[in-house]
Amino acid sequence: MPNVSRRQALKLASAGAIGLANRALRSQKPQQNGQSVPVWQIFEATFQGPTGGNPFRDVHLSATFSFGSREVDVEGFYDGEGRYKVRFMPDAPGAWTFTTHCNEHELDGRVGEFSSVAAKPDAHGPVRVARTSHFEHVDGTPYYPFGTTCYAWIHQSEALQSETLETLRSAPFNKIRMCVFPKSYEYNHNEPALYPFERSHDGKSDFAKPNPAFYAHLERRILDLQRLGIEADLILFHPYDRWGYATMSAEDDDAYLRYVLARLSSCRNIWWSMANEFDLMKTKTAADFDRLFQLVTHYDAFNHLRSVHYSKTMYNYGHPWVTHASLQNSNFSSSGEYRRDWNKPIVFDEVGYEGNLNRRWGCMSSAEMIRKFWVGVISGSYVTHGECYLDNPADFREDSTPTLWWSHGGKLHGDTAKRVGFLKQIIEDTAPSNAHRIGWDPTPDPYYLNAVLYDTAGSRAETVLYYFDSHQPIWYQFPLPEGQFTAEYLDPDAGTISPIGGRFSGKPHLTLTGKPYQGVRFRRVS
Amino acid sequence: MPNVSRRQALKLASAGAIGLANRALRSQKPQQNGQSVPVWQIFEATFQGPTGGNPFRDVHLSATFSFGSREVDVEGFYDGEGRYKVRFMPDAPGAWTFTTHCNEHELDGRVGEFSSVAAKPDAHGPVRVARTSHFEHVDGTPYYPFGTTCYAWIHQSEALQSETLETLRSAPFNKIRMCVFPKSYEYNHNEPALYPFERSHDGKSDFAKPNPAFYAHLERRILDLQRLGIEADLILFHPYDRWGYATMSAEDDDAYLRYVLARLSSCRNIWWSMANEFDLMKTKTAADFDRLFQLVTHYDAFNHLRSVHYSKTMYNYGHPWVTHASLQNSNFSSSGEYRRDWNKPIVFDEVGYEGNLNRRWGCMSSAEMIRKFWVGVISGSYVTHGECYLDNPADFREDSTPTLWWSHGGKLHGDTAKRVGFLKQIIEDTAPSNAHRIGWDPTPDPYYLNAVLYDTAGSRAETVLYYFDSHQPIWYQFPLPEGQFTAEYLDPDAGTISPIGGRFSGKPHLTLTGKPYQGVRFRRVS
Repeated sequence: MPNVSRRQALKLASAGAIGLANRALRSQKPQQNGQSVPVWQIFEATFQGPTGGNPFRDVHLSATFSFGSREVDVEGFYDGEGRYKVRFMPDAPGAWTFTTHCNEHELDGRVGEFSSVAAKPDAHGPVRVARTSHFEHVDGTPYYPFGTTCYAWIHQSEALQSETLETLRSAPFNKIRMCVFPKSYEYNHNEPALYPFERSHDGKSDFAKPNPAFYAHLERRILDLQRLGIEADLILFHPYDRWGYATMSAEDDDAYLRYVLARLSSCRNIWWSMANEFDLMKTKTAADFDRLFQLVTHYDAFNHLRSVHYSKTMYNYGHPWVTHASLQNSNFSSSGEYRRDWNKPIVFDEVGYEGNLNRRWGCMSSAEMIRKFWVGVISGSYVTHGECYLDNPADFREDSTPTLWWSHGGKLHGDTAKRVGFLKQIIEDTAPSNAHRIGWDPTPDPYYLNAVLYDTAGSRAETVLYYFDSHQPIWYQFPLPEGQFTAEYLDPDAGTISPIGGRFSGKPHLTLTGKPYQGVRFRRVS
Repeated sequence: MPNVSRRQALKLASAGAIGLANRALRSQKPQQNGQSVPVWQIFEATFQGPTGGNPFRDVHLSATFSFGSREVDVEGFYDGEGRYKVRFMPDAPGAWTFTTHCNEHELDGRVGEFSSVAAKPDAHGPVRVARTSHFEHVDGTPYYPFGTTCYAWIHQSEALQSETLETLRSAPFNKIRMCVFPKSYEYNHNEPALYPFERSHDGKSDFAKPNPAFYAHLERRILDLQRLGIEADLILFHPYDRWGYATMSAEDDDAYLRYVLARLSSCRNIWWSMANEFDLMKTKTAADFDRLFQLVTHYDAFNHLRSVHYSKTMYNYGHPWVTHASLQNSNFSSSGEYRRDWNKPIVFDEVGYEGNLNRRWGCMSSAEMIRKFWVGVISGSYVTHGECYLDNPADFREDSTPTLWWSHGGKLHGDTAKRVGFLKQIIEDTAPSNAHRIGWDPTPDPYYLNAVLYDTAGSRAETVLYYFDSHQPIWYQFPLPEGQFTAEYLDPDAGTISPIGGRFSGKPHLTLTGKPYQGVRFRRVS
């Protein structure tokens, strides 16, 4: 095996760098002076290799990363222009080494090493399932998903993408549902700037040849979200298509998935959503998705969350490879049943979209959206936001592509986000840090919606939260667990928390406002 | 058999008279000069008979009424003070005769006759099931139930009962759920003025001895409702009890039912509700209610509507003796499923109560109540109202009995009734008379809640009604049946109907307000 030249080494060292620069030199000896990579960031090694034939399909590159006695296999990928890469997300500080495997001799047996250092303060690792029906980051940091939806935001103009990120910066959302592929649908008639596969002049895609420039763009956007603390709930397939991505062959699907997984699995803020409305994909069955789930499980060395979203017919969320349910309905009263059936977190990922469109799914009132968030969360589940307001409905033509947050991003209208943020703060206040981590379970009150939030041991209620939905009692006797609690009125509409003087225990009788959609929070003081 | 004395005859002639005076003289020959009775009013014959023993149980009186070759058997009953009665509701004008049957010789074989004349203009006969899942009066007059609930109103003070009737006079409700027995429950601690059975000085009831004064009062109230055009959905059993009425023996239950049926079946505005929350009655099973239903079917010569209401566990509404479902839930999206399962009208009789009580069931917002009416009706079902506002909540004590419409009657608060009236008018406008009678079926729109109201032949849509629930589109394309239609905006909150200029056909594009909870009505012009 030839040694790497100094020039090659410099080139390789500068070629990678997603998030953090890193080095990987072609050498039989581990690279001693590789740049250090914080835990949960991305290490990337780049190699020059063959350009003949179709390197995307012909060259099978992978690597085994070692940490002490532990070994982790990752897929490599072709990034165009003779560049081959492997990426890795270290989960522990210390010395990591790797060795490549390839059917091309010059890319086989390449070794390297890097040093991982402590995670940056805002990096907590991927999100995992916790306490059966909830989530947390791998390092134990609480994570309560308050998602939003911008299906095709990465396929809009650069200016609009920047505006979307600016909106997200001040919004409460910490998860976003977004598609890899561009979207063809009503209100979505524009062509993307970058296509995920090579296209001939007559617009025909070559599904055997991914477009590295597109993926570099996608990755940049996912890392933009990562910097904002937002999980990318990345939708791998969807039926809204005029380019052929929805009807590729099984072979093309598999190769596509392997490529996406090899490129993106090292992003700590990735969730895999196998599809949006999988059951509307005419050439794929639920069994096809079973297979695709297996591929994701196999190729994702970092075990990101996995689910799939449906239109009419649910996928079997009980399958062991599904980490959580991703529902399109608003059956919050079935939350408990869903949890019993699947023993997993329940995310109501599509509850309709707030807006003013001439479509049922896109014209819910803001008040109803907020109500759904509260009822969903109090039922022990999670809810995802979406919005579709036409700015100038009178000017709208059927063949135009307005800017709707739902698909394009841009700006949010009204103050729904602020109200979602209020609820998020209420929930996160009960778990301000790792040390205060709590379990959180709804306890059906005989009369009202309520949730009891327990301490770490799961045995002592820290917070008791009531939400009255459309009810408007003027007083109520609140059964409390043993101990002393403070009490506050919560007004989800006004976003106010009003302390009620005194300490409460037993079954205190509190006067209420007699308005609907109000809440009360009790917090333990002893 | 002794002839009736002149004095006796006069007494008998004046003793009966519910609604209309009538005569029945003891004679082997039919009474030729009996007063005429309009169709759907009550004919009553009174006889003096034995007073020894327990006439309520010992004397078994019935009568066969004949009209041409038709014969109808009715039960008679003891009204105290030696008076025995049979009642009858003629359904056709002409000459009716009757003969009594009795185990007491002097009451057996008594005959009489009366002449029935045309129904009064506002009398349309009992309500029946029509077009599978709807209702109408026997004479074909459309009837769309918009009910309310005052469980124990007949057990309150005379002044409060008068106020209730005055409220009902200007309210839109045409059905009322009300109990025979007084109610013992939270907010219901008062004793009734009249008890349904004789009581000893120590308050012990003798279930073998109905109290005729109580029944006379109940009848008066049912006829008061009849004059207001309101159907009495009379609840025969309920679990909220401290007097023992909920836990009588099967023998007592049967005798009670026979007595109620004998007295009340001739009231044209009666519906039989076997129970409120039958499944909360600890000493009765669903099978007991099967038996009680058989008794009602047997003793009610006039075949009034029959159902039963539940708390948690539904009665089997598929049973052939149940005429319609009387539900305690708000699962309007299951309306179609319920209709398919039972092939009967669906009445959501308890959807919660508007109010401000410290109970989940009694503190719904007015907006939510109205929304439930619209969603229920648009789903092809019917909804019953109820209200629980404490006037002076600060003054309320747990052991007091405030005046809550739900149980006591009195006044209605706010303008919910007005809004229910608006919807009722919308529905009734589509069927202003017998000649314009229409079938009415919901047709699920792919995007919005809508109902198509057909003409008599069931083949031509006369009215197409849309309701947008919490959706707020700013325009919509409305698919219409063949023909030309006018269009109007409906604002259920403001109670306004705003015509939209022009004629519409095909799939017209209409601009909407962008507010939630709005409707649109299309009416055929050609």
